[in-house]
Amino acid sequence: MIEPIRFTADTLLLLDQRLLPEREEWLELRSTEDAIVAIRDLVVRGAPAIGVTAAYGLVLGARQLPKTRPEFDTGFAELCAAMCEARPTAINLAWAVDRLQQIVGKMPAAAVDEVLAALLAESERIQVADLDANRTMGRHGAALLGDQATVLTHCNAGALATAGYGTALGVVRAAVELGKKIQVLADETRPYLQGARLTAWELQRDDIPCTVIADNMSGYMMQTGAVDAVVVGSDRIAANGDVANKIGTYMVAVLAREHGIPFYVAAPTSTIDLGVANGTEIPIEERDGDEVVVIGGQRIAPVGISAAYPAFDVTPARLVDAIITEQGVARAPYTESLRAHCEAAALP
Amino acid sequence: MIEPIRFTADTLLLLDQRLLPEREEWLELRSTEDAIVAIRDLVVRGAPAIGVTAAYGLVLGARQLPKTRPEFDTGFAELCAAMCEARPTAINLAWAVDRLQQIVGKMPAAAVDEVLAALLAESERIQVADLDANRTMGRHGAALLGDQATVLTHCNAGALATAGYGTALGVVRAAVELGKKIQVLADETRPYLQGARLTAWELQRDDIPCTVIADNMSGYMMQTGAVDAVVVGSDRIAANGDVANKIGTYMVAVLAREHGIPFYVAAPTSTIDLGVANGTEIPIEERDGDEVVVIGGQRIAPVGISAAYPAFDVTPARLVDAIITEQGVARAPYTESLRAHCEAAALP
Repeated sequence: MIEPIRFTADTLLLLDQRLLPEREEWLELRSTEDAIVAIRDLVVRGAPAIGVTAAYGLVLGARQLPKTRPEFDTGFAELCAAMCEARPTAINLAWAVDRLQQIVGKMPAAAVDEVLAALLAESERIQVADLDANRTMGRHGAALLGDQATVLTHCNAGALATAGYGTALGVVRAAVELGKKIQVLADETRPYLQGARLTAWELQRDDIPCTVIADNMSGYMMQTGAVDAVVVGSDRIAANGDVANKIGTYMVAVLAREHGIPFYVAAPTSTIDLGVANGTEIPIEERDGDEVVVIGGQRIAPVGISAAYPAFDVTPARLVDAIITEQGVARAPYTESLRAHCEAAALP
Repeated sequence: MIEPIRFTADTLLLLDQRLLPEREEWLELRSTEDAIVAIRDLVVRGAPAIGVTAAYGLVLGARQLPKTRPEFDTGFAELCAAMCEARPTAINLAWAVDRLQQIVGKMPAAAVDEVLAALLAESERIQVADLDANRTMGRHGAALLGDQATVLTHCNAGALATAGYGTALGVVRAAVELGKKIQVLADETRPYLQGARLTAWELQRDDIPCTVIADNMSGYMMQTGAVDAVVVGSDRIAANGDVANKIGTYMVAVLAREHGIPFYVAAPTSTIDLGVANGTEIPIEERDGDEVVVIGGQRIAPVGISAAYPAFDVTPARLVDAIITEQGVARAPYTESLRAHCEAAALP
């Protein structure tokens, strides 16, 4: 079982995803700033994993704040603001930060040490709940797959993108656990190659058959009948069901619809942002074009050429056949079904 | 001006496209076998360039055959058969071989030295005619572009893919020569990265603005209104207008249609194969999956993972808004328009 995020007494350990699959190295983080840098530099990626990392990262920083209030509260608010700036698209980051801020807000009279204990407990709850949510959504999603199916996925929405088990790959894992014969076509997912590096690595460890393809091959695979379903994760889902996810997801969705192949999104309710009405309101991170034209230190384009790197795109709800959360399978109209999932998730 | 194929007294010089844009090195070929290896190993690629290379490669081999007939004819037929096996999809290879075989067939009583001279002359005609065709189709295609346009292209259909000037990039170059303000979005085109390496290199030399994107970004670019037209080359066009081209072209075509963006194919009539009724009859080359998971000697996926590498795909004619040849702009129904272009090209 792959758990990419571990919190020990005073250290947050992250499996350094930049080095996989070549090397398995753990990075030791000791401050909020360390966690911000790790999120920004893609040591950890995947919306739920970013959320868990943000929470523990704030715990580390909170421990270094003054032990008096309101000085602690002021300092903590600053840490939260800085954390929210780490990356813009995944809502789980802001969601996790908000949960910790609410803890502080609910304990106005408590000693700082009590607040610190509560923040750690909340972070652990976020981590455990994410793992649980993945297993539950895996079961919901597995029911959508045939007994024999080839699932195409984009990017890595696996154990490495979450507290463990995975969202899209959680669906695959749950189907395999049910005895279904599943094989995966993994888009390599340029430029960061999460598919070739991370999804392939995870599935190989679990002995689930996986074939890596370049991102420009998924259309051909659909055209030749090789794909039964598409399952991807998400970084943020708008109230109307528009889905932000890794750049290239939109192309896969259009092609899937063209071929009558179901396109499923698997994500915990923590990824749903009822505060944005539709996808146009979701900020799309623009990263440095050099991350496109340099692969592992090797330049692949002439010096001086420009390159673009929008890191995410938005798939309109009309192309999404279902959104699988830990609450079940949401179908269109999503404005209603997603709200119901979020309300169910908020119940005690 | 970029001319990637040069024939000197006894040597065929090829600009080694595997090393671009880092190094400009010329490979010296001295036999048909050398040319076959160069085509198979992608020293030269692009359907028209493969055709020119095949012709000169056969001249090199023919010179080493017995100077008596019919021994020469037998040996030449064997060279032609071997050459046709070099790569399966681009029809220009078989087309060029056929033109040289016809030369031999038309001179049954001639001395071998006369035949050799005729073969060289025919190869030079093929090269010169390709360059001419590119310039002519460039003018035809340029008329389809607005005075200011962003053209998305996939793979490299430029000077490096032809005798010079290019097919798709020929359209871009001709538009620029007419004073139009054109910028190019170049799909990097995994796994061989013809877009990032070759298209970007060519356009940079010509001072034509070019931005490299990963293959999974073209949908986003269309969605955000950044693309005015798509222009690509082709490796083989069926009689009904189905277009075989670099893997990923089909996805671009589906996305272009989704967004109402015109999708144009630029190719000489030598790329049209009236002998295949539709795209299902075009052989799609399957290359070694290792070419996908190893980039410049660096492995990007776990050892032991499988990878697929279909090198081409077929875009159905219904997604093609026009096919630009040296004879003009062919529109649907292509069965008629392409036949007319081929007949016009065959006129003396």
